[in-house]
Amino acid sequence: MTPQRPGFSGYRLDRADHLRADDDALTMMRRDKHARLLVLDGYTPSLTDDGALVWGSLANASVDAAFILLGISNERPHFVAFEQPVAGAPLFRSPQIMQTLARLSREDMAIYGAARSLIDWHGRHGFCSQCGQATRVHRAGWGRKCVVCNAEHFPRVDPVVIMLAEHDGRALVGRAPKWPAGRYSALAGFLEPGETIEEAVARELFEEAGVVTTTVRYVTSQPWPFPAQLMLACIAEVKSPALTLAPTEIEDAFWVTKQEALAALAGDAGARFLAPPHYAVAHSLLTQWAAS
Amino acid sequence: MTPQRPGFSGYRLDRADHLRADDDALTMMRRDKHARLLVLDGYTPSLTDDGALVWGSLANASVDAAFILLGISNERPHFVAFEQPVAGAPLFRSPQIMQTLARLSREDMAIYGAARSLIDWHGRHGFCSQCGQATRVHRAGWGRKCVVCNAEHFPRVDPVVIMLAEHDGRALVGRAPKWPAGRYSALAGFLEPGETIEEAVARELFEEAGVVTTTVRYVTSQPWPFPAQLMLACIAEVKSPALTLAPTEIEDAFWVTKQEALAALAGDAGARFLAPPHYAVAHSLLTQWAAS
Repeated sequence: MTPQRPGFSGYRLDRADHLRADDDALTMMRRDKHARLLVLDGYTPSLTDDGALVWGSLANASVDAAFILLGISNERPHFVAFEQPVAGAPLFRSPQIMQTLARLSREDMAIYGAARSLIDWHGRHGFCSQCGQATRVHRAGWGRKCVVCNAEHFPRVDPVVIMLAEHDGRALVGRAPKWPAGRYSALAGFLEPGETIEEAVARELFEEAGVVTTTVRYVTSQPWPFPAQLMLACIAEVKSPALTLAPTEIEDAFWVTKQEALAALAGDAGARFLAPPHYAVAHSLLTQWAAS
Repeated sequence: MTPQRPGFSGYRLDRADHLRADDDALTMMRRDKHARLLVLDGYTPSLTDDGALVWGSLANASVDAAFILLGISNERPHFVAFEQPVAGAPLFRSPQIMQTLARLSREDMAIYGAARSLIDWHGRHGFCSQCGQATRVHRAGWGRKCVVCNAEHFPRVDPVVIMLAEHDGRALVGRAPKWPAGRYSALAGFLEPGETIEEAVARELFEEAGVVTTTVRYVTSQPWPFPAQLMLACIAEVKSPALTLAPTEIEDAFWVTKQEALAALAGDAGARFLAPPHYAVAHSLLTQWAAS
Protein backbone atom coordinates (compact mmCIF):
# COMPACT_ATOMS: atom_id res chain seq x y z
CA MET A 1 0.00 0.00 0.00
CA THR A 2 1.68 3.25 -1.13
CA PRO A 3 0.46 6.10 1.06
CA GLN A 4 -1.25 8.99 -0.70
CA ARG A 5 0.63 12.08 0.47
CA PRO A 6 -1.61 14.15 2.73
CA GLY A 7 -2.10 17.92 2.78
CA PHE A 8 0.52 20.04 4.62
CA SER A 9 3.21 17.47 3.75
CA GLY A 10 5.92 17.95 1.11
CA TYR A 11 7.94 20.82 2.67
CA ARG A 12 10.41 21.67 -0.07
CA LEU A 13 12.79 24.07 1.71
CA ASP A 14 16.10 22.86 3.13
CA ARG A 15 15.60 23.49 6.85
CA ALA A 16 19.35 24.14 7.22
CA ASP A 17 19.40 23.21 10.90
CA HIS A 18 23.19 23.64 11.00
CA LEU A 19 22.85 27.38 10.24
CA ARG A 20 20.26 28.19 12.90
CA ALA A 21 22.84 28.76 15.63
CA ASP A 22 25.34 30.45 13.29
CA ASP A 23 24.92 34.17 13.93
CA ASP A 24 27.21 35.25 11.08
CA ALA A 25 25.39 33.10 8.55
CA LEU A 26 22.03 34.40 9.80
CA THR A 27 23.14 38.01 9.51
CA MET A 28 24.29 37.40 5.95
CA MET A 29 21.02 35.68 5.06
CA ARG A 30 18.98 38.54 6.51
CA ARG A 31 21.02 41.01 4.42
CA ASP A 32 20.77 38.89 1.27
CA LYS A 33 18.82 40.92 -1.30
CA HIS A 34 17.41 37.64 -2.65
CA ALA A 35 15.99 36.70 0.77
CA ARG A 36 12.24 36.13 0.71
CA LEU A 37 9.63 36.87 3.36
CA LEU A 38 6.30 35.05 3.49
CA VAL A 39 3.50 37.61 3.10
CA LEU A 40 0.93 37.20 5.88
CA ASP A 41 -1.87 39.39 7.21
CA GLY A 42 -2.08 38.05 10.75
CA TYR A 43 -2.37 34.36 10.03
CA THR A 44 -3.83 34.81 6.53
CA PRO A 45 -1.56 34.20 3.54
CA SER A 46 -1.71 36.14 0.28
CA LEU A 47 -2.17 34.07 -2.85
CA THR A 48 -1.20 34.69 -6.46
CA ASP A 49 -3.93 34.32 -9.10
CA ASP A 50 -2.86 30.75 -9.69
CA GLY A 51 -2.98 29.89 -6.01
CA ALA A 52 0.68 30.10 -4.90
CA LEU A 53 1.98 31.73 -1.72
CA VAL A 54 3.13 35.35 -2.17
CA TRP A 55 6.67 36.19 -1.02
CA GLY A 56 8.05 39.69 -0.45
CA SER A 57 11.36 41.11 0.77
CA LEU A 58 12.50 41.40 4.38
CA ALA A 59 12.04 45.16 4.12
CA ASN A 60 8.28 44.50 4.23
CA ALA A 61 8.46 43.49 7.89
CA SER A 62 7.97 45.93 10.76
CA VAL A 63 11.09 47.19 12.52
CA ASP A 64 10.58 45.11 15.64
CA ALA A 65 9.83 41.87 13.82
CA ALA A 66 11.88 38.75 14.51
CA PHE A 67 12.78 36.62 11.50
CA ILE A 68 12.22 32.89 11.55
CA LEU A 69 14.33 30.98 9.03
CA LEU A 70 11.92 28.62 7.27
CA GLY A 71 14.72 27.28 5.09
CA ILE A 72 16.66 27.66 1.87
CA SER A 73 15.66 26.98 -1.71
CA ASN A 74 17.76 27.73 -4.81
CA GLU A 75 20.27 29.44 -2.48
CA ARG A 76 17.59 31.92 -1.39
CA PRO A 77 16.82 32.09 2.33
CA HIS A 78 13.08 32.04 3.11
CA PHE A 79 11.78 33.69 6.27
CA VAL A 80 8.54 34.40 8.07
CA ALA A 81 8.30 37.37 10.45
CA PHE A 82 7.07 37.10 14.01
CA GLU A 83 5.57 40.46 14.91
CA GLN A 84 4.56 39.75 18.52
CA PRO A 85 1.25 38.08 19.32
CA VAL A 86 -1.42 38.69 16.67
CA ALA A 87 -4.21 40.45 18.59
CA GLY A 88 -7.52 38.65 18.43
CA ALA A 89 -6.16 36.14 15.93
CA PRO A 90 -8.04 32.86 15.78
CA LEU A 91 -6.02 30.16 17.50
CA PHE A 92 -7.77 27.53 15.47
CA ARG A 93 -8.88 27.19 11.92
CA SER A 94 -11.66 29.34 10.48
CA PRO A 95 -13.82 28.55 7.42
CA GLN A 96 -12.20 31.54 5.67
CA ILE A 97 -8.65 30.31 6.11
CA MET A 98 -9.56 26.78 5.09
CA GLN A 99 -11.10 28.08 1.84
CA THR A 100 -7.87 29.94 1.12
CA LEU A 101 -5.69 26.93 1.97
CA ALA A 102 -7.75 24.63 -0.22
CA ARG A 103 -6.49 26.65 -3.24
CA LEU A 104 -2.81 26.11 -2.38
CA SER A 105 -0.63 23.32 -3.70
CA ARG A 106 0.21 20.67 -1.10
CA GLU A 107 3.80 21.95 -0.95
CA ASP A 108 2.76 25.56 -0.37
CA MET A 109 0.36 24.31 2.30
CA ALA A 110 3.35 22.65 3.98
CA ILE A 111 5.34 25.89 4.09
CA TYR A 112 2.35 27.90 5.30
CA GLY A 113 1.64 25.24 7.93
CA ALA A 114 5.15 25.25 9.38
CA ALA A 115 5.20 29.08 9.39
CA ARG A 116 1.81 29.24 11.09
CA SER A 117 2.76 26.69 13.75
CA LEU A 118 5.93 28.64 14.54
CA ILE A 119 4.44 32.14 14.79
CA ASP A 120 1.55 30.80 16.85
CA TRP A 121 4.01 29.11 19.22
CA HIS A 122 6.12 32.28 19.57
CA GLY A 123 2.96 34.27 20.29
CA ARG A 124 2.08 31.99 23.19
CA HIS A 125 5.60 31.64 24.65
CA GLY A 126 6.73 35.17 25.41
CA PHE A 127 7.45 34.13 29.01
CA CYS A 128 9.57 31.40 30.56
CA SER A 129 7.50 28.54 31.97
CA GLN A 130 10.28 27.82 34.47
CA CYS A 131 10.72 31.28 36.04
CA GLY A 132 8.05 33.60 34.57
CA GLN A 133 10.51 36.10 33.04
CA ALA A 134 10.62 37.23 29.40
CA THR A 135 11.96 35.01 26.64
CA ARG A 136 13.57 36.07 23.38
CA VAL A 137 13.74 34.46 19.94
CA HIS A 138 16.54 31.88 19.73
CA ARG A 139 18.07 29.60 17.07
CA ALA A 140 16.71 31.53 14.05
CA GLY A 141 13.17 31.23 15.42
CA TRP A 142 13.30 27.50 16.19
CA GLY A 143 13.38 28.17 19.91
CA ARG A 144 13.12 30.82 22.61
CA LYS A 145 15.49 31.47 25.49
CA CYS A 146 14.81 33.01 28.88
CA VAL A 147 16.62 36.32 29.34
CA VAL A 148 17.02 35.63 33.08
CA CYS A 149 17.44 31.89 33.75
CA ASN A 150 18.65 30.97 30.23
CA ALA A 151 16.21 28.06 29.95
CA GLU A 152 15.75 27.04 26.33
CA HIS A 153 12.27 26.34 24.98
CA PHE A 154 11.49 24.57 21.72
CA PRO A 155 8.39 24.63 19.50
CA ARG A 156 5.79 22.07 20.46
CA VAL A 157 4.57 19.31 18.18
CA ASP A 158 1.62 17.48 19.74
CA PRO A 159 1.05 13.90 18.55
CA VAL A 160 -2.58 13.04 17.79
CA VAL A 161 -3.84 9.61 16.82
CA ILE A 162 -6.54 9.50 14.13
CA MET A 163 -7.99 6.16 13.21
CA LEU A 164 -10.56 4.12 11.42
CA ALA A 165 -11.89 1.24 13.48
CA GLU A 166 -12.44 -1.69 11.10
CA HIS A 167 -14.78 -4.64 11.56
CA ASP A 168 -15.99 -7.21 9.06
CA GLY A 169 -14.90 -5.09 6.10
CA ARG A 170 -16.52 -1.88 7.33
CA ALA A 171 -14.93 1.23 8.85
CA LEU A 172 -16.24 3.45 11.61
CA VAL A 173 -16.83 7.13 10.89
CA GLY A 174 -18.17 9.60 13.41
CA ARG A 175 -18.91 13.28 13.85
CA ALA A 176 -18.30 15.87 16.55
CA PRO A 177 -21.20 18.14 17.52
CA LYS A 178 -19.66 21.30 16.00
CA TRP A 179 -18.85 19.92 12.54
CA PRO A 180 -20.58 20.99 9.30
CA ALA A 181 -23.89 19.18 8.66
CA GLY A 182 -23.39 15.71 7.24
CA ARG A 183 -19.60 15.60 7.81
CA TYR A 184 -18.23 12.32 9.21
CA SER A 185 -14.59 11.41 9.63
CA ALA A 186 -12.11 9.22 11.49
CA LEU A 187 -12.07 9.46 15.29
CA ALA A 188 -9.07 11.18 16.86
CA GLY A 189 -7.48 12.28 20.12
CA PHE A 190 -4.25 13.52 21.71
CA LEU A 191 -1.62 10.95 22.62
CA GLU A 192 -0.57 11.28 26.27
CA PRO A 193 2.70 10.87 28.16
CA GLY A 194 3.37 7.16 28.73
CA GLU A 195 1.55 5.92 25.62
CA THR A 196 2.54 4.25 22.38
CA ILE A 197 0.65 5.12 19.19
CA GLU A 198 -1.03 1.73 19.35
CA GLU A 199 -2.12 2.23 22.98
CA ALA A 200 -3.47 5.72 22.29
CA VAL A 201 -5.51 4.39 19.33
CA ALA A 202 -7.02 1.66 21.50
CA ARG A 203 -7.77 4.05 24.37
CA GLU A 204 -9.40 6.69 22.18
CA LEU A 205 -11.55 4.16 20.32
CA PHE A 206 -12.73 2.71 23.62
CA GLU A 207 -13.36 6.12 25.22
CA GLU A 208 -15.17 7.60 22.23
CA ALA A 209 -16.98 4.62 20.74
CA GLY A 210 -16.76 1.76 23.27
CA VAL A 211 -15.02 -0.58 20.82
CA VAL A 212 -12.17 -2.91 21.81
CA THR A 213 -9.09 -2.90 19.57
CA THR A 214 -7.23 -6.07 18.65
CA THR A 215 -4.57 -4.85 16.20
CA VAL A 216 -3.38 -1.44 14.98
CA ARG A 217 -1.76 -0.70 11.63
CA TYR A 218 0.02 2.63 11.06
CA VAL A 219 -0.84 4.12 7.66
CA THR A 220 0.57 7.65 7.32
CA SER A 221 1.27 10.91 9.13
CA GLN A 222 0.61 14.61 8.61
CA PRO A 223 1.61 17.90 10.23
CA TRP A 224 -1.57 19.81 11.09
CA PRO A 225 -0.95 23.48 11.85
CA PHE A 226 -3.93 24.33 14.08
CA PRO A 227 -1.82 24.93 16.07
CA ALA A 228 0.89 22.21 15.76
CA GLN A 229 -0.24 18.61 15.71
CA LEU A 230 1.44 15.54 14.27
CA MET A 231 -1.46 13.44 12.98
CA LEU A 232 -0.73 9.70 13.20
CA ALA A 233 -3.22 7.91 10.96
CA CYS A 234 -3.99 4.25 11.70
CA ILE A 235 -6.45 1.46 11.00
CA ALA A 236 -7.54 -0.58 14.03
CA GLU A 237 -9.25 -3.96 13.90
CA VAL A 238 -11.87 -4.18 16.63
CA LYS A 239 -13.58 -7.17 18.28
CA SER A 240 -17.22 -6.22 17.91
CA PRO A 241 -19.17 -3.52 16.04
CA ALA A 242 -21.41 -2.60 19.01
CA LEU A 243 -20.96 1.10 19.79
CA THR A 244 -21.18 3.08 23.03
CA LEU A 245 -20.62 6.70 22.06
CA ALA A 246 -19.19 9.38 24.37
CA PRO A 247 -21.93 11.96 23.72
CA THR A 248 -19.87 15.07 24.52
CA GLU A 249 -17.30 14.10 21.89
CA ILE A 250 -19.11 11.95 19.33
CA GLU A 251 -22.59 13.05 18.30
CA ASP A 252 -23.11 10.15 15.91
CA ALA A 253 -21.11 7.34 14.33
CA PHE A 254 -21.78 4.44 11.98
CA TRP A 255 -20.06 1.68 10.03
CA VAL A 256 -19.53 2.25 6.29
CA THR A 257 -18.67 -0.08 3.46
CA LYS A 258 -15.83 0.62 1.05
CA GLN A 259 -18.40 1.52 -1.62
CA GLU A 260 -20.04 4.04 0.71
CA ALA A 261 -16.65 5.54 1.55
CA LEU A 262 -15.73 5.82 -2.14
CA ALA A 263 -19.02 7.56 -2.92
CA ALA A 264 -18.43 10.06 -0.11
CA LEU A 265 -14.80 10.66 -1.18
CA ALA A 266 -16.00 11.27 -4.74
CA GLY A 267 -18.49 13.83 -3.44
CA ASP A 268 -21.49 11.95 -4.89
CA ALA A 269 -24.79 13.70 -4.26
CA GLY A 270 -26.32 10.50 -2.93
CA ALA A 271 -23.38 9.63 -0.64
CA ARG A 272 -24.21 8.51 2.88
CA PHE A 273 -22.00 11.20 4.42
CA LEU A 274 -19.86 14.23 3.60
CA ALA A 275 -16.18 13.17 3.51
CA PRO A 276 -13.39 15.13 5.22
CA PRO A 277 -11.69 17.73 2.97
CA HIS A 278 -8.93 16.57 0.61
CA TYR A 279 -6.14 18.20 2.64
CA ALA A 280 -7.07 16.37 5.88
CA VAL A 281 -5.20 13.16 6.66
CA ALA A 282 -8.57 11.53 7.35
CA HIS A 283 -9.23 11.88 3.62
CA SER A 284 -5.98 10.06 2.80
CA LEU A 285 -6.76 7.42 5.42
CA LEU A 286 -10.28 6.78 4.17
CA THR A 287 -9.02 6.70 0.57
CA GLN A 288 -6.37 4.13 1.36
CA TRP A 289 -8.73 2.01 3.41
CA ALA A 290 -11.37 2.03 0.67
CA ALA A 291 -8.75 1.08 -1.96
CA SER A 292 -7.24 -1.73 0.13
CA MET B 1 5.90 -8.81 11.33
CA THR B 2 4.52 -8.67 14.87
CA PRO B 3 6.21 -5.85 16.74
CA GLN B 4 8.08 -6.79 19.90
CA ARG B 5 6.64 -4.55 22.60
CA PRO B 6 9.27 -2.03 23.69
CA GLY B 7 10.15 -0.89 27.20
CA PHE B 8 7.96 1.76 28.86
CA SER B 9 4.93 0.48 26.90
CA GLY B 10 2.08 -1.56 28.39
CA TYR B 11 0.53 0.99 30.81
CA ARG B 12 -2.05 -1.08 32.64
CA LEU B 13 -4.00 1.59 34.56
CA ASP B 14 -7.29 2.95 33.24
CA ARG B 15 -6.41 6.61 32.64
CA ALA B 16 -10.03 7.57 33.43
CA ASP B 17 -9.88 10.78 31.43
CA HIS B 18 -13.58 11.44 32.11
CA LEU B 19 -12.90 11.80 35.85
CA ARG B 20 -10.02 14.27 35.60
CA ALA B 21 -12.29 17.31 35.49
CA ASP B 22 -14.78 15.88 38.02
CA ASP B 23 -13.88 17.57 41.32
CA ASP B 24 -16.27 15.47 43.40
CA ALA B 25 -14.91 12.22 42.01
CA LEU B 26 -11.34 13.41 42.58
CA THR B 27 -12.07 14.35 46.18
CA MET B 28 -13.55 10.92 46.80
CA MET B 29 -10.59 9.21 45.18
CA ARG B 30 -8.13 11.20 47.28
CA ARG B 31 -10.04 10.20 50.44
CA ASP B 32 -10.30 6.54 49.38
CA LYS B 33 -8.37 4.49 51.93
CA HIS B 34 -7.42 2.08 49.13
CA ALA B 35 -5.85 4.86 47.07
CA ARG B 36 -2.19 4.21 46.25
CA LEU B 37 0.69 6.65 45.93
CA LEU B 38 3.79 5.84 43.89
CA VAL B 39 6.81 5.94 46.21
CA LEU B 40 9.55 8.16 44.75
CA ASP B 41 12.66 9.76 46.18
CA GLY B 42 13.01 12.69 43.79
CA TYR B 43 12.82 10.86 40.49
CA THR B 44 14.05 7.52 41.89
CA PRO B 45 11.48 4.76 42.43
CA SER B 46 11.58 2.25 45.27
CA LEU B 47 11.52 -1.40 44.26
CA THR B 48 10.37 -4.52 46.06
CA ASP B 49 12.80 -7.43 46.32
CA ASP B 50 11.30 -8.95 43.19
CA GLY B 51 11.62 -5.73 41.20
CA ALA B 52 8.12 -4.22 41.37
CA LEU B 53 7.28 -0.56 42.02
CA VAL B 54 6.49 0.23 45.67
CA TRP B 55 3.19 1.99 46.40
CA GLY B 56 2.25 3.75 49.65
CA SER B 57 -0.76 5.68 50.88
CA LEU B 58 -1.57 9.31 50.13
CA ALA B 59 -0.73 10.15 53.74
CA ASN B 60 2.93 9.64 52.78
CA ALA B 61 2.95 12.82 50.67
CA SER B 62 3.94 16.21 52.06
CA VAL B 63 1.12 18.59 52.98
CA ASP B 64 1.66 20.88 49.99
CA ALA B 65 1.90 18.10 47.40
CA ALA B 66 -0.41 18.04 44.40
CA PHE B 67 -1.78 14.66 43.40
CA ILE B 68 -1.65 13.50 39.80
CA LEU B 69 -4.15 10.77 38.95
CA LEU B 70 -2.17 8.14 37.07
CA GLY B 71 -5.27 5.99 36.69
CA ILE B 72 -7.42 3.27 38.23
CA SER B 73 -6.79 -0.44 38.61
CA ASN B 74 -9.05 -2.90 40.47
CA GLU B 75 -11.16 0.09 41.54
CA ARG B 76 -8.14 1.57 43.34
CA PRO B 77 -7.04 5.06 42.27
CA HIS B 78 -3.29 5.36 41.70
CA PHE B 79 -1.55 8.69 42.18
CA VAL B 80 1.87 10.26 42.03
CA ALA B 81 2.64 13.37 44.07
CA PHE B 82 4.13 16.51 42.61
CA GLU B 83 6.05 18.22 45.39
CA GLN B 84 7.29 21.31 43.53
CA PRO B 85 10.44 21.18 41.43
CA VAL B 86 12.91 18.55 42.62
CA ALA B 87 16.03 20.56 43.50
CA GLY B 88 19.08 19.49 41.56
CA ALA B 89 17.26 16.53 40.06
CA PRO B 90 18.73 15.17 36.84
CA LEU B 91 16.57 16.22 33.91
CA PHE B 92 17.87 13.34 31.87
CA ARG B 93 18.65 9.74 32.58
CA SER B 94 21.50 8.73 34.83
CA PRO B 95 23.32 5.37 34.87
CA GLN B 96 21.91 4.80 38.37
CA ILE B 97 18.28 5.23 37.38
CA MET B 98 18.71 3.10 34.27
CA GLN B 99 20.12 0.25 36.38
CA THR B 100 17.07 0.49 38.63
CA LEU B 101 14.64 0.64 35.72
CA ALA B 102 16.24 -2.37 34.04
CA ARG B 103 14.99 -4.47 37.00
CA LEU B 104 11.34 -3.42 36.52
CA SER B 105 8.76 -5.26 34.46
CA ARG B 106 7.86 -3.51 31.22
CA GLU B 107 4.45 -2.55 32.66
CA ASP B 108 5.92 -1.05 35.81
CA MET B 109 8.39 0.85 33.61
CA ALA B 110 5.38 2.27 31.74
CA ILE B 111 3.78 3.57 34.94
CA TYR B 112 7.05 4.98 36.21
CA GLY B 113 7.68 6.60 32.83
CA ALA B 114 4.33 8.37 32.68
CA ALA B 115 4.71 9.53 36.30
CA ARG B 116 8.22 10.81 35.65
CA SER B 117 7.21 12.68 32.50
CA LEU B 118 4.35 14.36 34.34
CA ILE B 119 6.23 15.47 37.45
CA ASP B 120 9.11 16.70 35.32
CA TRP B 121 6.68 18.71 33.18
CA HIS B 122 4.98 20.23 36.24
CA GLY B 123 8.38 21.17 37.65
CA ARG B 124 9.23 23.12 34.51
CA HIS B 125 5.84 24.80 34.03
CA GLY B 126 5.18 26.72 37.22
CA PHE B 127 4.64 29.89 35.17
CA CYS B 128 2.36 30.78 32.27
CA SER B 129 4.21 31.01 28.96
CA GLN B 130 1.58 33.49 27.73
CA CYS B 131 1.65 36.05 30.56
CA GLY B 132 4.43 35.07 32.99
CA GLN B 133 2.18 34.64 36.03
CA ALA B 134 1.89 31.55 38.24
CA THR B 135 0.08 28.41 37.10
CA ARG B 136 -1.65 25.80 39.25
CA VAL B 137 -2.29 22.09 38.81
CA HIS B 138 -5.35 21.43 36.67
CA ARG B 139 -7.34 18.39 35.48
CA ALA B 140 -6.03 15.97 38.11
CA GLY B 141 -2.46 16.78 37.11
CA TRP B 142 -2.94 16.40 33.34
CA GLY B 143 -2.61 20.14 32.83
CA ARG B 144 -1.85 23.46 34.48
CA LYS B 145 -3.91 26.65 34.39
CA CYS B 146 -2.77 30.25 34.75
CA VAL B 147 -4.16 31.88 37.89
CA VAL B 148 -4.33 35.27 36.10
CA CYS B 149 -5.11 34.83 32.38
CA ASN B 150 -6.70 31.34 32.71
CA ALA B 151 -4.63 29.93 29.84
CA GLU B 152 -4.58 26.14 29.96
CA HIS B 153 -1.32 24.26 29.43
CA PHE B 154 -1.02 20.55 28.73
CA PRO B 155 1.88 18.13 29.21
CA ARG B 156 4.25 17.96 26.28
CA VAL B 157 4.97 14.84 24.28
CA ASP B 158 7.82 15.44 21.82
CA PRO B 159 7.89 13.18 18.75
CA VAL B 160 11.33 11.79 17.88
CA VAL B 161 12.11 9.69 14.82
CA ILE B 162 14.56 6.81 15.35
CA MET B 163 15.54 4.76 12.35
CA LEU B 164 17.72 2.16 10.76
CA ALA B 165 18.86 3.10 7.29
CA GLU B 166 18.87 -0.09 5.21
CA HIS B 167 20.90 -0.83 2.09
CA ASP B 168 21.61 -4.10 0.34
CA GLY B 169 20.53 -6.15 3.36
CA ARG B 170 22.59 -4.18 5.86
CA ALA B 171 21.51 -1.64 8.46
CA LEU B 172 23.28 1.51 9.60
CA VAL B 173 24.21 1.86 13.27
CA GLY B 174 26.02 4.86 14.70
CA ARG B 175 27.20 6.28 18.00
CA ALA B 176 27.11 9.69 19.66
CA PRO B 177 30.32 10.96 21.28
CA LYS B 178 29.02 10.65 24.86
CA TRP B 179 27.78 7.06 24.70
CA PRO B 180 29.34 4.11 26.59
CA ALA B 181 32.35 2.61 24.80
CA GLY B 182 31.37 0.29 21.96
CA ARG B 183 27.64 1.18 22.01
CA TYR B 184 26.03 1.67 18.59
CA SER B 185 22.35 2.22 17.89
CA ALA B 186 19.81 3.59 15.43
CA LEU B 187 20.12 7.28 14.48
CA ALA B 188 17.46 9.62 15.87
CA GLY B 189 16.27 13.21 16.03
CA PHE B 190 13.35 15.45 16.98
CA LEU B 191 10.53 15.83 14.47
CA GLU B 192 9.82 19.51 13.74
CA PRO B 193 6.68 21.54 13.02
CA GLY B 194 5.65 21.02 9.40
CA GLU B 195 7.07 17.50 9.03
CA THR B 196 5.64 14.04 8.55
CA ILE B 197 7.35 11.08 10.20
CA GLU B 198 8.65 10.04 6.80
CA GLU B 199 10.09 13.49 6.07
CA ALA B 200 11.76 13.75 9.47
CA VAL B 201 13.37 10.32 8.97
CA ALA B 202 14.76 11.38 5.58
CA ARG B 203 15.99 14.74 6.89
CA GLU B 204 17.73 13.28 9.94
CA LEU B 205 19.42 10.50 7.94
CA PHE B 206 20.70 13.06 5.46
CA GLU B 207 21.82 15.54 8.14
CA GLU B 208 23.55 12.96 10.32
CA ALA B 209 24.87 10.43 7.80
CA GLY B 210 24.54 11.98 4.34
CA VAL B 211 22.36 9.15 3.02
CA VAL B 212 19.35 9.72 0.75
CA THR B 213 16.11 7.94 1.71
CA THR B 214 13.83 6.33 -0.87
CA THR B 215 11.13 4.67 1.28
CA VAL B 216 10.25 4.68 4.97
CA ARG B 217 8.47 1.91 6.85
CA TYR B 218 7.03 2.57 10.32
CA VAL B 219 7.77 -0.29 12.72
CA THR B 220 6.74 0.60 16.28
CA SER B 221 6.57 3.37 18.87
CA GLN B 222 7.59 3.93 22.48
CA PRO B 223 7.08 6.55 25.16
CA TRP B 224 10.53 7.58 26.46
CA PRO B 225 10.37 9.49 29.74
CA PHE B 226 13.61 11.51 29.62
CA PRO B 227 11.74 13.82 29.71
CA ALA B 228 8.73 13.01 27.47
CA GLN B 229 9.46 11.75 23.99
CA LEU B 230 7.34 9.65 21.66
CA MET B 231 9.86 7.48 19.84
CA LEU B 232 8.75 6.66 16.29
CA ALA B 233 10.82 3.71 15.08
CA CYS B 234 11.24 3.22 11.34
CA ILE B 235 13.30 1.43 8.71
CA ALA B 236 14.40 3.57 5.74
CA GLU B 237 15.69 2.23 2.44
CA VAL B 238 18.49 4.45 1.16
CA LYS B 239 19.98 4.90 -2.30
CA SER B 240 23.66 4.45 -1.59
CA PRO B 241 25.75 3.29 1.39
CA ALA B 242 28.31 6.11 1.14
CA LEU B 243 28.36 8.02 4.45
CA THR B 244 29.06 11.66 5.30
CA LEU B 245 28.83 11.89 9.08
CA ALA B 246 27.91 15.05 11.01
CA PRO B 247 30.86 14.90 13.43
CA THR B 248 29.24 16.83 16.30
CA GLU B 249 26.37 14.34 16.40
CA ILE B 250 27.71 11.05 15.03
CA GLU B 251 31.18 10.01 16.11
CA ASP B 252 31.19 6.83 14.06
CA ALA B 253 28.75 4.71 12.04
CA PHE B 254 28.90 1.52 9.96
CA TRP B 255 26.72 -0.95 8.11
CA VAL B 256 25.96 -4.25 9.86
CA THR B 257 24.62 -7.55 8.61
CA LYS B 258 21.69 -9.30 10.27
CA GLN B 259 24.10 -11.83 11.74
CA GLU B 260 26.22 -9.07 13.26
CA ALA B 261 23.09 -7.44 14.69
CA LEU B 262 21.90 -10.73 16.18
CA ALA B 263 25.29 -11.33 17.80
CA ALA B 264 25.22 -7.83 19.33
CA LEU B 265 21.62 -8.26 20.54
CA ALA B 266 22.57 -11.61 22.12
CA GLY B 267 25.44 -9.88 23.93
CA ASP B 268 28.06 -12.16 22.36
CA ALA B 269 31.58 -11.41 23.55
CA GLY B 270 32.85 -11.26 19.98
CA ALA B 271 30.03 -9.03 18.70
CA ARG B 272 31.03 -6.12 16.47
CA PHE B 273 29.25 -3.62 18.72
CA LEU B 274 27.41 -3.22 22.02
CA ALA B 275 23.64 -3.22 21.34
CA PRO B 276 21.23 -0.70 22.88
CA PRO B 277 19.65 -1.86 26.19
CA HIS B 278 16.61 -4.14 26.05
CA TYR B 279 14.19 -1.40 27.17
CA ALA B 280 15.16 1.01 24.36
CA VAL B 281 13.01 1.00 21.23
CA ALA B 282 16.22 0.79 19.20
CA HIS B 283 16.63 -2.72 20.65
CA SER B 284 13.13 -3.69 19.44
CA LEU B 285 13.83 -2.09 16.06
CA LEU B 286 17.14 -3.87 15.56
CA THR B 287 15.59 -7.16 16.72
CA GLN B 288 12.74 -6.89 14.24
CA TRP B 289 15.00 -5.83 11.41
CA ALA B 290 17.40 -8.74 12.07
CA ALA B 291 14.49 -11.21 12.19
CA SER B 292 12.87 -9.93 9.01
